[in-house]
Amino acid sequence: MPRLVRVAAAQLGPIAREESRAAVVERLLAMLHKAHSFGAQLVVYPEMALTTFFPRWVFDDVDDADAFCETSMPNPDVQPLFDEAKRLGIGFYLGYGELTQEEGRKKRFNTSILVGADGSIIGKYRKVHLPGRKDADPTGCAGNFEKRYYEVGNLGFPVFRAFDGVMGMAICNDRRWPETYRAMSLQGAELIMLGYNTGTVKRTMVGNAQVQEPAHLSSFHNHLVMQAGAYQNCCWVVGVAKAGMEEGVEFMGGSCIIAPTGDIVAQAVTTADEVIVADCDLDLSLHNRRTTFNFEVNRQIQTYGIITAQRGVVVSV
Amino acid sequence: MPRLVRVAAAQLGPIAREESRAAVVERLLAMLHKAHSFGAQLVVYPEMALTTFFPRWVFDDVDDADAFCETSMPNPDVQPLFDEAKRLGIGFYLGYGELTQEEGRKKRFNTSILVGADGSIIGKYRKVHLPGRKDADPTGCAGNFEKRYYEVGNLGFPVFRAFDGVMGMAICNDRRWPETYRAMSLQGAELIMLGYNTGTVKRTMVGNAQVQEPAHLSSFHNHLVMQAGAYQNCCWVVGVAKAGMEEGVEFMGGSCIIAPTGDIVAQAVTTADEVIVADCDLDLSLHNRRTTFNFEVNRQIQTYGIITAQRGVVVSV
Repeated sequence: MPRLVRVAAAQLGPIAREESRAAVVERLLAMLHKAHSFGAQLVVYPEMALTTFFPRWVFDDVDDADAFCETSMPNPDVQPLFDEAKRLGIGFYLGYGELTQEEGRKKRFNTSILVGADGSIIGKYRKVHLPGRKDADPTGCAGNFEKRYYEVGNLGFPVFRAFDGVMGMAICNDRRWPETYRAMSLQGAELIMLGYNTGTVKRTMVGNAQVQEPAHLSSFHNHLVMQAGAYQNCCWVVGVAKAGMEEGVEFMGGSCIIAPTGDIVAQAVTTADEVIVADCDLDLSLHNRRTTFNFEVNRQIQTYGIITAQRGVVVSV
Repeated sequence: MPRLVRVAAAQLGPIAREESRAAVVERLLAMLHKAHSFGAQLVVYPEMALTTFFPRWVFDDVDDADAFCETSMPNPDVQPLFDEAKRLGIGFYLGYGELTQEEGRKKRFNTSILVGADGSIIGKYRKVHLPGRKDADPTGCAGNFEKRYYEVGNLGFPVFRAFDGVMGMAICNDRRWPETYRAMSLQGAELIMLGYNTGTVKRTMVGNAQVQEPAHLSSFHNHLVMQAGAYQNCCWVVGVAKAGMEEGVEFMGGSCIIAPTGDIVAQAVTTADEVIVADCDLDLSLHNRRTTFNFEVNRQIQTYGIITAQRGVVVSV
């Protein structure tokens, strides 16, 4: 008997800097209704889904980032989404900038929450793998300064029992790190939700010249790491983009729902607001979990020590 | 300036049970000469490249496996390969069954060696992730009994300075485990050589019925895990098959040379003896090593503890 959860990925087109949260929530609501028309039980929205992706800018005053962050959740701007989702009996994953007071000081995190069908917040995740730079990049290559504004997430990689399974969350650059999926699958994660804001072009310096990475690579890498994460960890991965030309920067689309086989079973085709859906059988990977990827039988942790003992590369040969 | 090593992948077609090692070495020599005609400096042969893949059988007497293993390396059967490679100034990776005496008892390992252009053995690796079962499978699904004959490799994941870079080795099922690549890339591995013998069909039990996994998945997974391993670890991966119908079992081909971009830059198209080649620039990933995948800056080992602390899945939610 399959153990099905019907999941929608709600890709967002660009959000302009001047667009109000109330206007964005209207867009999220429109996609919620489309997801409902598909019979979805769970909707996955992107990373930082309430505002433009502000870390593309280097603000002299880092506290200028506060205006893009939420100090409570829900809050009046987002309450209509909570209310309507609860009325429809649909849960959701939502990414947003979080502004909080902890340990006696202000902190900002790149955060996601999982909200149950009853409108209650089931769990929170704070992005661990912050990409980009802290300071302005004189070469002009960098387009991401998350390290300037956000702290490294301090909640680890928690998982949550919900939607008849074990759910995990990750955000954007987390997907490139195999440790992300493994830390959750070792806790039994069966479905990992992941929002992203990722440029379509990566520039680099070769000698003194700024050159562009081959154009196919951004999208290829986006899918490659999520497909490998799904297969190697016997879990579903739902990757959801903020896409399109946002404040002069082009974000990739490619939102997708990936089965534990690694197959992409649903994929967005636009770079605008778009909803895709799939029935995710959380038992699809049972056979792999019992054979090839029976971790208890086959993982050889006595050979993995360097992975947690050592942060960077150390060449000793 | 690129830092080039020209690598050939020498895929083998099937080896019959009755085929002598001397006959197989003739085939390896023919491919060595073809690799030489390409100007290759390093040839990668498959896993267990000297005999048929005997762990497909369940021998009542496990010591029947000894006949498929080497007690010394080189030995008279393999010496012609060492001699000719040295004469041509070509190094090679070779997989074979190893029979040894350690700690006062007989042990068998699924082993690979790296041989330098001067004919000396630079390093040895013993397969860590043994697939399959130890005992006969009453469902008839299993086609691999390596756990019956081989011990888990006891050399960890060593890397070796050779061919103007840092070289790593892995074998077959190791490629499905992200820990394999990570353990080596944290030591600076720039090129990972990997031989495999992998069936094209995976059967499974669903209830009481034996069913076949969708046919596209075996090859898809083969490339997926190696491409992700290459990209996520900024290294080249050279995956080399024993391919074709061997003793009634069909092995996949798909041997390939994968760049640190994750791109397959050369791929075999047959399931027979076949040589492919590529110039591998060991500096191709320098930019990624300094930015996205700067491990020292971006790995967050304080969140990875479960990966080495815990072998199997533990669900506590």
